[in-house]
Amino acid sequence: MSAAKKKTANRMRTGVLGASGYTGGELLRLLAGHEGMEIRLLTGERRAGKALAEVFPHLAGLGAPDLRRIDDADYGGLDAVFCCLPHGTTQQVIAALPSHLKVVDLSADFRLKDPETYAAWYGRAHEAVELQREAVYGLTELHRDAVARARLTANPGCYPTAAQLPLAPLLAAGAIAAEDIIIDAKSGVSGAGREAKEAMLFAEVSEGVHAYGIGRHRHAPEIEQGLSAAAGSAVTVNFTPHLVPMNRGILATIYVRLAAGADVAALRETLVGCYRDEPFVHVVADGVAPATRHVRGSNHCLIGVFPDRLPGRAILVSAIDNLVKGASGQAIQNMNLMCALPETMGLEQSPLFP
Amino acid sequence: MSAAKKKTANRMRTGVLGASGYTGGELLRLLAGHEGMEIRLLTGERRAGKALAEVFPHLAGLGAPDLRRIDDADYGGLDAVFCCLPHGTTQQVIAALPSHLKVVDLSADFRLKDPETYAAWYGRAHEAVELQREAVYGLTELHRDAVARARLTANPGCYPTAAQLPLAPLLAAGAIAAEDIIIDAKSGVSGAGREAKEAMLFAEVSEGVHAYGIGRHRHAPEIEQGLSAAAGSAVTVNFTPHLVPMNRGILATIYVRLAAGADVAALRETLVGCYRDEPFVHVVADGVAPATRHVRGSNHCLIGVFPDRLPGRAILVSAIDNLVKGASGQAIQNMNLMCALPETMGLEQSPLFP
Amino acid sequence: MSAAKKKTANRMRTGVLGASGYTGGELLRLLAGHEGMEIRLLTGERRAGKALAEVFPHLAGLGAPDLRRIDDADYGGLDAVFCCLPHGTTQQVIAALPSHLKVVDLSADFRLKDPETYAAWYGRAHEAVELQREAVYGLTELHRDAVARARLTANPGCYPTAAQLPLAPLLAAGAIAAEDIIIDAKSGVSGAGREAKEAMLFAEVSEGVHAYGIGRHRHAPEIEQGLSAAAGSAVTVNFTPHLVPMNRGILATIYVRLAAGADVAALRETLVGCYRDEPFVHVVADGVAPATRHVRGSNHCLIGVFPDRLPGRAILVSAIDNLVKGASGQAIQNMNLMCALPETMGLEQSPLFP
Amino acid sequence: MSAAKKKTANRMRTGVLGASGYTGGELLRLLAGHEGMEIRLLTGERRAGKALAEVFPHLAGLGAPDLRRIDDADYGGLDAVFCCLPHGTTQQVIAALPSHLKVVDLSADFRLKDPETYAAWYGRAHEAVELQREAVYGLTELHRDAVARARLTANPGCYPTAAQLPLAPLLAAGAIAAEDIIIDAKSGVSGAGREAKEAMLFAEVSEGVHAYGIGRHRHAPEIEQGLSAAAGSAVTVNFTPHLVPMNRGILATIYVRLAAGADVAALRETLVGCYRDEPFVHVVADGVAPATRHVRGSNHCLIGVFPDRLPGRAILVSAIDNLVKGASGQAIQNMNLMCALPETMGLEQSPLFP
Repeated sequence: MSAAKKKTANRMRTGVLGASGYTGGELLRLLAGHEGMEIRLLTGERRAGKALAEVFPHLAGLGAPDLRRIDDADYGGLDAVFCCLPHGTTQQVIAALPSHLKVVDLSADFRLKDPETYAAWYGRAHEAVELQREAVYGLTELHRDAVARARLTANPGCYPTAAQLPLAPLLAAGAIAAEDIIIDAKSGVSGAGREAKEAMLFAEVSEGVHAYGIGRHRHAPEIEQGLSAAAGSAVTVNFTPHLVPMNRGILATIYVRLAAGADVAALRETLVGCYRDEPFVHVVADGVAPATRHVRGSNHCLIGVFPDRLPGRAILVSAIDNLVKGASGQAIQNMNLMCALPETMGLEQSPLFP
Repeated sequence: MSAAKKKTANRMRTGVLGASGYTGGELLRLLAGHEGMEIRLLTGERRAGKALAEVFPHLAGLGAPDLRRIDDADYGGLDAVFCCLPHGTTQQVIAALPSHLKVVDLSADFRLKDPETYAAWYGRAHEAVELQREAVYGLTELHRDAVARARLTANPGCYPTAAQLPLAPLLAAGAIAAEDIIIDAKSGVSGAGREAKEAMLFAEVSEGVHAYGIGRHRHAPEIEQGLSAAAGSAVTVNFTPHLVPMNRGILATIYVRLAAGADVAALRETLVGCYRDEPFVHVVADGVAPATRHVRGSNHCLIGVFPDRLPGRAILVSAIDNLVKGASGQAIQNMNLMCALPETMGLEQSPLFP
Repeated sequence: MSAAKKKTANRMRTGVLGASGYTGGELLRLLAGHEGMEIRLLTGERRAGKALAEVFPHLAGLGAPDLRRIDDADYGGLDAVFCCLPHGTTQQVIAALPSHLKVVDLSADFRLKDPETYAAWYGRAHEAVELQREAVYGLTELHRDAVARARLTANPGCYPTAAQLPLAPLLAAGAIAAEDIIIDAKSGVSGAGREAKEAMLFAEVSEGVHAYGIGRHRHAPEIEQGLSAAAGSAVTVNFTPHLVPMNRGILATIYVRLAAGADVAALRETLVGCYRDEPFVHVVADGVAPATRHVRGSNHCLIGVFPDRLPGRAILVSAIDNLVKGASGQAIQNMNLMCALPETMGLEQSPLFP
Repeated sequence: MSAAKKKTANRMRTGVLGASGYTGGELLRLLAGHEGMEIRLLTGERRAGKALAEVFPHLAGLGAPDLRRIDDADYGGLDAVFCCLPHGTTQQVIAALPSHLKVVDLSADFRLKDPETYAAWYGRAHEAVELQREAVYGLTELHRDAVARARLTANPGCYPTAAQLPLAPLLAAGAIAAEDIIIDAKSGVSGAGREAKEAMLFAEVSEGVHAYGIGRHRHAPEIEQGLSAAAGSAVTVNFTPHLVPMNRGILATIYVRLAAGADVAALRETLVGCYRDEPFVHVVADGVAPATRHVRGSNHCLIGVFPDRLPGRAILVSAIDNLVKGASGQAIQNMNLMCALPETMGLEQSPLFP
């Protein structure tokens, strides 16, 4: 259905494991326009044997292969694999992959470096501890060099991406206090995945908003791991996610205490300095409030910095599309680096509004 | 259109000034089912001369009078007036009303007791300072006795209602610190009123979320006035409102520091004790997250109390319908008290879900 | 949570079988404000043992009994039962009920009078054929007297209610042709029920519209049965339902051919004459287009009549709330008649807008 | 903000007149990724002097020029212009443009060939009758050759595009009757434009559906003009548009009478034959219902063909994105042809779902 596009001669042959969920579908949408990659394998256990058009009618025109079971996958002709499987099962699947494959894993399985933290938050021991050590945490802007050398990249969670991009540089610069960081995040519904659950039915979700997982969401330790590394000391955060009746988008409103001597202008300067040359991360103009609708469908992250009425404090706001910079877009950005392709390849689309 | 209902013999004859906006319409919806009040006057400057059915087709069956200009209003046969006019013009209109009328004002004009605070936030001197002094702030549960004796009640703002109901009792009890109160609030779109503005078009608002008025929303001083009174000392708050693509509802997620010796259980106990006998304010069970969809169309406020991962802190969540407990429902609740009617009269509906 | 309301001394003791779905919840919302009925029994197989507040947090304040399994139900103290079970199982459950109970069945099981039509559309023989014969089809305005005498009323489907209210009187009057009736209907998502299905997830449904069940929706034979009776001859219709991203509402846009000698004015006159004294069905003013948002939460049906650019044809538009007049509201309207209570009791609420 | 992309050396220098509305913004989104065009001029009367980022924050990264008034526009260095102005004013603006410019007009001003029809539906005489004669009607798939030779293309309306793509080939083939064509169309809200109107506020539009302009929408004569040409005789249609709470998308459900000897299979065959090699128009598989969410953000049109329960009739369903194939995408498709560029250039994106 989609019109032809130029493809480089020696493009990477990629597979998507778990292609029938929202992050899988979004990978395929983006890969369809990627000049350096082509889709050679799709898996989906429950949908094995089906054409992609049955699983995602909007992708009918891609000319992609039918879905198959993972056990029936042939990795011989592939260069790279995106893994969109549920956490838990992912460990074993990736451990069994041929070692010549470059892998970006979109699950949570390899994000936490400390096996004990993993076990504490996921309720079971990690089953591929060596791979866990090897995996590079793929928040691209902060770990670009390591990603470029990685064979296995753990793609960050959507909330952790929205939270760390504004916070990590400020902690690294000592511009904000490491205590009392409060992250009030609002997410669209696609973040909950495509599994049929009563709580995610249209009639349950629309026309309302609520907080969930208060004080116990699994993205909290992931955020804390990254911020601790940036700060050089253990950081604990308040992370409170909310569900908003929209398909896509995460808005993180972050309340921080200024370090001694810092002010809002210094925060802005630090962030502008850090992201000035980044193609995807943008500090918006003074007084402008980032909105998720202004990044919809794109790999961009918008960051705003605001004074607080409370003395000695400031407010940071970041906006991403949870399925793009929060998942599949960043996965391609990482894979581009791992494959020595231009980092922005396949990610050049402008946001879709309205 | 609406079926007949029993009306008490001597019901209050009421008028609604500014009946063509959302709070006006909501007042009429609720008054239609109110056994102790009847609608005798509707005004609307731009819609003067029109039948209510033209302005609000859903209210076609009320048998209400046509809209007229305020200058053409005859207050002689009225007992009470709800005023839903824009702030600024309201002062003069109310100052000119006959003194036998009981008045609930839904604008911001009489909420701030200090004329200087009013001038600072509204950019002009108050023009009815004596009335401002006389007006009772109508957060019903906290000022019930004063409201019952009032001739003029200043109905609270929607955000201030959602913020003060959980916070005021805790400050009064000394259970939380008066510093570092952070109120992250999420509102439905009807809170922006019915005026035609590009920013409130469906295509601008849907499928997205953003913060607005960061650090400078006019509900901040109103919240601070109430909390300062409760705390017995000046309180400054962070108040950060967000716009959510839904018609109705406010969710306030509030981050507080515990007072020395207090814990989350103590907070819960204080709130339960305070609201145990209230018909409209409810502390939900431990672990349950209040959702705006569970109060839609009703005068209820749900409050949840949660532990924070940050030591020494706690999280409060409150949910109201901005047009009911946040505006017209509370206005009727107040007028009921002022007219010596049962406080819950006309407000007995269960929420509408989905 | 809901404030007290006056109850008549000898109110009907009712049960709701299948109380955990949307029509069950809506029945409870409406019964909570019903002065002539009280809730004594709730069943829900999967939720048995749970408090209603866990199933429907918005109904936490009703003081209703916990849910139990049908096998554990005691019908001894009941006068009436609303049955909100899935079609198929309903037949046996109702057949086993004590005969002193008045029953309104909201499933499709007793709507079709002809066992062969039932078998053809539902793929199995009917298992309670005698009850099927006894059951009265409860489109209240058209079968009021029969309903008042019924012990078992088959509550109409949502689409058939929206379609028959405008069409039946016109066919009965011979004002429109019985051929070429095209019913293009648009429904909110709650009509699909509360079962977890991928196709009804928020992210699947929002920001889009599509037709479904084209030419084979089970409401077609129900509509045809009613229209055939009205016309006095067999009527076949085009019925094409669509799913719209909203919680509630059905809009039926109906394209008809005028009978010889009839014109649009005659159609309007016929409908006005038929529904002039009805509390819930209203022919709107010339040129006004009915909208679902103007009946949301109410038992009303709005009907508009429009000229067509195609000569000899006309357009009818009807709007209802699928959960109220299209299900639970009409069920109460019917039960009121069966219990000799005022027909509008418990159904007096104005619509909720916005 | 958007990453760099390859541009051909001699790309067309284009301007967008009226760049601050939704079709203007959508043109800019698509042109940003177009390798054969670049943006050199933007106009916007009310926003003149503003940066594009202030008008459309999602396009902040395009590096586009600031908006200016039309009177300040310099057309000297331009090759082509897209005109997104309101109907009425457009005539004079285009008449005054230098004759070297290729023009695609997205307004309604040059769509109707007959000046009397224009005057009858727009209430005023056309002021550029010669241009009206010259303009080519740009429903690309049906008028490709004429568009390729045109200097001025009148871009079709959104509804007429969705209606004519399935209907015109069937009328041309004599497969359906020219009488009794009923087009029930459902549109997203962006179709109403970006002007601030009460009726298009989020709170007015969401959670509801209604028909509008019944029997008198200005797209009716445009549809009839195209269908008459296809049929070779005057065609009158029923066209009934509805407003659906979504940003983008048009679904047209079309009810037709089969010509003598034709059946549903023949209709499908005719359409498949007509569109087999088209990059953007696709006849979906038997039994599949087109959905607007499957074309969102893309230039695709999906067409389904279904049997009707009414004997001798059939149902057609088409789905487009009103801002892409229904406006800006088709405009680029036309301009590509006019500039001898590949027809699909800049329009290769896959749809965005969810």
